[in-house]
Amino acid sequence: MIKLYSYFRSSAAYRVRIALNLKALPYESIPVHLLNNGGEQHSAHYESINPIKLVPSLVDSEQIFTQSLAIMEYLEEAYPDTTSLLPEEVNVRANIRAISQMIACDIHPVNNLRVLQYLNKQLDIDETHRNDWYRHWITVGFDALEKVLAKQPGKFCIGDTPTMADCCLIPQIYNAKRFNVHLDDYPHILSVEASCKELPAFIQAEPEKQPDMA
Amino acid sequence: MIKLYSYFRSSAAYRVRIALNLKALPYESIPVHLLNNGGEQHSAHYESINPIKLVPSLVDSEQIFTQSLAIMEYLEEAYPDTTSLLPEEVNVRANIRAISQMIACDIHPVNNLRVLQYLNKQLDIDETHRNDWYRHWITVGFDALEKVLAKQPGKFCIGDTPTMADCCLIPQIYNAKRFNVHLDDYPHILSVEASCKELPAFIQAEPEKQPDMA
Repeated sequence: MIKLYSYFRSSAAYRVRIALNLKALPYESIPVHLLNNGGEQHSAHYESINPIKLVPSLVDSEQIFTQSLAIMEYLEEAYPDTTSLLPEEVNVRANIRAISQMIACDIHPVNNLRVLQYLNKQLDIDETHRNDWYRHWITVGFDALEKVLAKQPGKFCIGDTPTMADCCLIPQIYNAKRFNVHLDDYPHILSVEASCKELPAFIQAEPEKQPDMA
Repeated sequence: MIKLYSYFRSSAAYRVRIALNLKALPYESIPVHLLNNGGEQHSAHYESINPIKLVPSLVDSEQIFTQSLAIMEYLEEAYPDTTSLLPEEVNVRANIRAISQMIACDIHPVNNLRVLQYLNKQLDIDETHRNDWYRHWITVGFDALEKVLAKQPGKFCIGDTPTMADCCLIPQIYNAKRFNVHLDDYPHILSVEASCKELPAFIQAEPEKQPDMA
């Protein structure tokens, strides 16, 4: 069975949980607590699995896979008979990947735990300014994403079925809400969220539903 | 002809320049100067092309494509008769994408110009500490990447021909050198660099070779 090294609140792990659920691929969740024990991702054991010490990692047929978008592409290619998260048309695939990467490259990494910890410990930035930082990068990203989604018809980011882009967006919305980003200015983002929230694959992947929820 | 909105020093644009050269796809370079005129990426015209105001953007058959990794995947799928940057084997493709994303998600975004500008202007972090920040994220990433590459035989990141991973690594090495990161501890990274530097596709994509070189 597929094993997923996950942390309930990690949005990169959350993306892969949604993708596995949409594909109806059963998996065993192995928790890696990013705060307890000095951060379990820093253990020698986990580093041997994921040298950059981030979640998620996925193990399938004794092979290790890392990086959430690469894992989703792998699942797409290794399990072609499951529900696809990337339609066939080349231009559409490119648009889906671009939205996914707007989130996974331009928003999320700048707000990752290790970055916030560096701002705190190495640069002595207080919580108020760290929260401003967090909201700033989401706002810059969501301002752009809202414009992209406004041009797209359909219930989801691209089209009327969920894709890799929705797997990325929903965890980022979760983060935005956690840090009190006002989402009223993003009607298209909220509309996609409403569509996703109707589907068990998204609901069951939520942080609060995970076995390692603190 | 393909158009590439590029900035000579942008490592995301540099990735795509290498990919286009490896595929022998001719393109017209349209410069977007990230510093002059308050940052030309902020113009209304460029925002209409790329709502998140980052380079590169690529235009092909009057369609706009954004995000460097999504663009490389697009070129791979739209031009299947060109030199491939992703071999056929599913597990190998996953490893190449994971290395690409270690660079494009875990290293580069945290050191992007807009982030350094925020550290400077909003958080009043001085140049010494900004440079420490820059080197820190490269070091964390390269420490991990060196371990990954040490397990891989072959002249390039994965195997004996260049892939998308090499398109990502070479620009990141360029950034590392610009900020005086000591690379002696990364013999496998340097070995891949030496292999790439023999190829015209990589040489012609270098920042100093670009028409908009300041």
